Amino acid sequence: MKDLLDQIHTALGGSPDRGNVATYIPELAKVDPGHFGIAVATVDGQVFTAGHADVLFSIQSVSKVFALALALGKVGDALWKRVGREPSGLSFNSLLLLERENGIPRNPFINAGALVATDTYLGESSPREALGQLLRFIRSAADDDTIHINDEVAASEVATCHRNRALAHYLASFGNLHAEVEKVIGTYSHQCAVEMNCRQLALAGRFLINGPGMPRLISSERRRRMAALMMTCGHYDGSGDFAFRAGLPGKSGVGGGILAFAPGRASIAVWSPGLNEYGNSKLGTEAIELLVRETGWSVFA
Amino acid sequence: MKDLLDQIHTALGGSPDRGNVATYIPELAKVDPGHFGIAVATVDGQVFTAGHADVLFSIQSVSKVFALALALGKVGDALWKRVGREPSGLSFNSLLLLERENGIPRNPFINAGALVATDTYLGESSPREALGQLLRFIRSAADDDTIHINDEVAASEVATCHRNRALAHYLASFGNLHAEVEKVIGTYSHQCAVEMNCRQLALAGRFLINGPGMPRLISSERRRRMAALMMTCGHYDGSGDFAFRAGLPGKSGVGGGILAFAPGRASIAVWSPGLNEYGNSKLGTEAIELLVRETGWSVFA
Amino acid sequence: MKDLLDQIHTALGGSPDRGNVATYIPELAKVDPGHFGIAVATVDGQVFTAGHADVLFSIQSVSKVFALALALGKVGDALWKRVGREPSGLSFNSLLLLERENGIPRNPFINAGALVATDTYLGESSPREALGQLLRFIRSAADDDTIHINDEVAASEVATCHRNRALAHYLASFGNLHAEVEKVIGTYSHQCAVEMNCRQLALAGRFLINGPGMPRLISSERRRRMAALMMTCGHYDGSGDFAFRAGLPGKSGVGGGILAFAPGRASIAVWSPGLNEYGNSKLGTEAIELLVRETGWSVFA
Amino acid sequence: MKDLLDQIHTALGGSPDRGNVATYIPELAKVDPGHFGIAVATVDGQVFTAGHADVLFSIQSVSKVFALALALGKVGDALWKRVGREPSGLSFNSLLLLERENGIPRNPFINAGALVATDTYLGESSPREALGQLLRFIRSAADDDTIHINDEVAASEVATCHRNRALAHYLASFGNLHAEVEKVIGTYSHQCAVEMNCRQLALAGRFLINGPGMPRLISSERRRRMAALMMTCGHYDGSGDFAFRAGLPGKSGVGGGILAFAPGRASIAVWSPGLNEYGNSKLGTEAIELLVRETGWSVFA
Repeated sequence: MKDLLDQIHTALGGSPDRGNVATYIPELAKVDPGHFGIAVATVDGQVFTAGHADVLFSIQSVSKVFALALALGKVGDALWKRVGREPSGLSFNSLLLLERENGIPRNPFINAGALVATDTYLGESSPREALGQLLRFIRSAADDDTIHINDEVAASEVATCHRNRALAHYLASFGNLHAEVEKVIGTYSHQCAVEMNCRQLALAGRFLINGPGMPRLISSERRRRMAALMMTCGHYDGSGDFAFRAGLPGKSGVGGGILAFAPGRASIAVWSPGLNEYGNSKLGTEAIELLVRETGWSVFA
Repeated sequence: MKDLLDQIHTALGGSPDRGNVATYIPELAKVDPGHFGIAVATVDGQVFTAGHADVLFSIQSVSKVFALALALGKVGDALWKRVGREPSGLSFNSLLLLERENGIPRNPFINAGALVATDTYLGESSPREALGQLLRFIRSAADDDTIHINDEVAASEVATCHRNRALAHYLASFGNLHAEVEKVIGTYSHQCAVEMNCRQLALAGRFLINGPGMPRLISSERRRRMAALMMTCGHYDGSGDFAFRAGLPGKSGVGGGILAFAPGRASIAVWSPGLNEYGNSKLGTEAIELLVRETGWSVFA
Repeated sequence: MKDLLDQIHTALGGSPDRGNVATYIPELAKVDPGHFGIAVATVDGQVFTAGHADVLFSIQSVSKVFALALALGKVGDALWKRVGREPSGLSFNSLLLLERENGIPRNPFINAGALVATDTYLGESSPREALGQLLRFIRSAADDDTIHINDEVAASEVATCHRNRALAHYLASFGNLHAEVEKVIGTYSHQCAVEMNCRQLALAGRFLINGPGMPRLISSERRRRMAALMMTCGHYDGSGDFAFRAGLPGKSGVGGGILAFAPGRASIAVWSPGLNEYGNSKLGTEAIELLVRETGWSVFA
Repeated sequence: MKDLLDQIHTALGGSPDRGNVATYIPELAKVDPGHFGIAVATVDGQVFTAGHADVLFSIQSVSKVFALALALGKVGDALWKRVGREPSGLSFNSLLLLERENGIPRNPFINAGALVATDTYLGESSPREALGQLLRFIRSAADDDTIHINDEVAASEVATCHRNRALAHYLASFGNLHAEVEKVIGTYSHQCAVEMNCRQLALAGRFLINGPGMPRLISSERRRRMAALMMTCGHYDGSGDFAFRAGLPGKSGVGGGILAFAPGRASIAVWSPGLNEYGNSKLGTEAIELLVRETGWSVFA
């Protein structure tokens, strides 16, 4: 596995065609696009890495996986009254379907649905408490108490995220946001600003693998269902393409991170800040595709 | 397995809440909604059935799986220049995205994309030749030379399918239909009118399972990719829901049939003519959900 | 004319089918739907009224006419780089086209476009100054210094207008809002909360009529162009219907007021709080239709 | 007036920026973009012309005005159950709103609505009879029995109009087309292929002017209402812009013709084959704008 990751790193790490770094959050625009890291945490307890696997990055929308687990933990299937489970076929911050569907976002992985999930685990707590809960979940999954939120990135996002505020007020206009908009936006922006390196993220993803030594933070049924959502909706309007190429459930973030996993086998984290046309890490997607081709880990094998 | 199928049949076969039979093809509207059949063909060569597993039904859009295999066999990845691989988030016969995306259908399992797939395997052949090829593929997959097309259903569809003609002319207006519209419509309507029973359909689906004794009609890579497409797009705007509940790749048809499969394990066919809100078999979906829960066959387990 | 208005009042004033009062601004929901007032200010300087023509009401979106005049006065045709001049075919607070058209609202009479107009006349002034300017314009047009803003209605709107905030943040995300969102929302909500009675509103509308004694607040060309915009876009997705039935340029508000005018002849104000399916005053529309039928004032006569 | 038309011809006739000739009907693509003609038929019975006012061109969608008059003559207001009266905000051959609005086109001047109008005047007649009726209407309006259909243009359109067939089948799928699709398409394509020169078209448009010597083919109320529809919907998604600039009701065709009129004053026909971004004659629009500026004929003056 270590050799394989090194091969992937060699094949892709220096690729000239790396996509474009997200620019709409000022702090993210500063990230060096030359980074490339990958880490695999296998079900037998080992961790393999290559490239910049120890450099911290902003997990951004990968955090939606943890937020969804938390929201489901809090209200269970009642969440599905407020958010759907279907791919939207549209970009991550689209308002189009929201209007046609009375404020029920298509799924919890587009921004609108993620705001509902955040609003759900936030409940009547303070943002500080809610974010504390989120960090405890992630730290417990990764078995690493150093994982933290980058306050500068969070502040940068709070200061500039007009589109998310538009989504939040829009949800609120349909009564589908219960806490105050600014509280939800603040919590959400901090959630997105969680920082990890590939090693930590791969470890944090182990709660989605089925295996004897893996952290048991959610039930088996919930794990399978979250996997299905990640497969069909985890990469926005590039979800079908990711499933086609990688054959694994995964979730991307505009920071260039992707968390994917092979049920019963391994959790995989890649990071390369350049994004493809759908807003998913370009080299990250290619790396997982290569990894799956060599390991045969596709869930459809 | 036989016991499990009997249990499922007992649990669901007499359900009062069966959804509604499709009415837009007159011949389909005549079908008795009381039918319920299920068949499972396992990788070790056995077939198990329960209920009306030997009654013929119209496979309708399940045929898109065979058509896609044929189209890919003919032109390979060039097909993806004419059709996408993303869930559309819209109903099976929607024209909405087609307009915004210059005549490139979102995926080969919505009607617009299926018409492109049909146009592809039709090529410059006559409809008779092309349909002969399709039947040979299906018969070979099922190892059953009695599988045939119901000409009355096909004629009923040809006579009434204004919406598909609208889609076809629309594709033609973008230059994304190469054969004459009426030829494509005729071929497509006959393809949809293939008749099988659950036993035959389960057998025909074995080419999608990976296993020593299974028919090898397509490459492993293509098999995995088709599975991904079935998972993300196989149930129209209910694809996410099917993935969430069943955790298997599958393809439904408005005749009430569903073909699903567990990679490396089994091919599954169910039939119950009543449809849910997305146009997928209501009891069929529930049956597969039950089956997967008991067998643990979810690809995400 | 007085007789005609009395006839219209008699015919419609007690109508049982009055539409529904807008409920989304709490203060507006309290208004008695039984009100019905009408006033006509003719080019020869006379004013005729019937019904509750002296009861104050919230002009709401009728204010967009004055705001547009002010915005054009400030930046001239440069406004058309930030907002279009086409009917949207969608409801007054839709976000749909905004997304497809990169944050350029279709016209200045839907809410999104009106926010851009408000942002334009606001410029770098304080909301207080900008609203002072707006009031001066309206008072000067109506020759009535008592016209004022209802602060309770404004506060009610500021407290609840999630949808407008969504629009504003959305515009801001495209860089098409220059002042701070909350400043624009505050100014806009106060602008909508201008109170007038029918008599005052008919007088205020005289600047749109061409005539020797009429107030000359804008050039003739601008007057004609604003009339065209009111004709094609003044009643949201009911604009075509209003033009078809009334044959006059007009602008409605969800408070139940309509300002219409017959070029060279008269300015007309009606008020009836119940709204039709498009969010325009139901009896108000009928009253103008009747008035035009009897007077022959259609611009198409 | 003759001088004014000559000035307009001089100002615009040689303009280098003429827009693009429509190419989607092969016969139309052959037309020389250098043509420019204008004709004005005044209410006192005179006709003035300049430029290529005697060269025949294909009136295309301008024919929708005559078709609408005919359809209303046949079924009256019952037409409005099958077609709306609102601007669509979308291009002339869009299918988008049709899907959302259950097969009721937004207005009779977009292609979908025009197909319904054609289907209405066609009724149970043969296309030959129906087209005979249409020609009699136009000839009677223009007082010119030489007006005819160009069969080559019609045949070219029948052979290539996939998009209109898509619209027609789509309408049929909603039950909003009563005759056979091919019969409607044939009739519609011939209707669009009516040929006139500017002089004839200006004369044919006189039935829309109110005046003692003008042909009385429809009632005054219907005339006013058709004018309103032309004002709000006559130039597709450029209708608002035309109203803003010209201030007159008008209808354009992709052949480069525009018929506009000043109620009580004159009927105006212009022809210049190059189209602007909305598919309306570029120089034609500019010519009418100039004419109205000089004559003060805006309905909003």
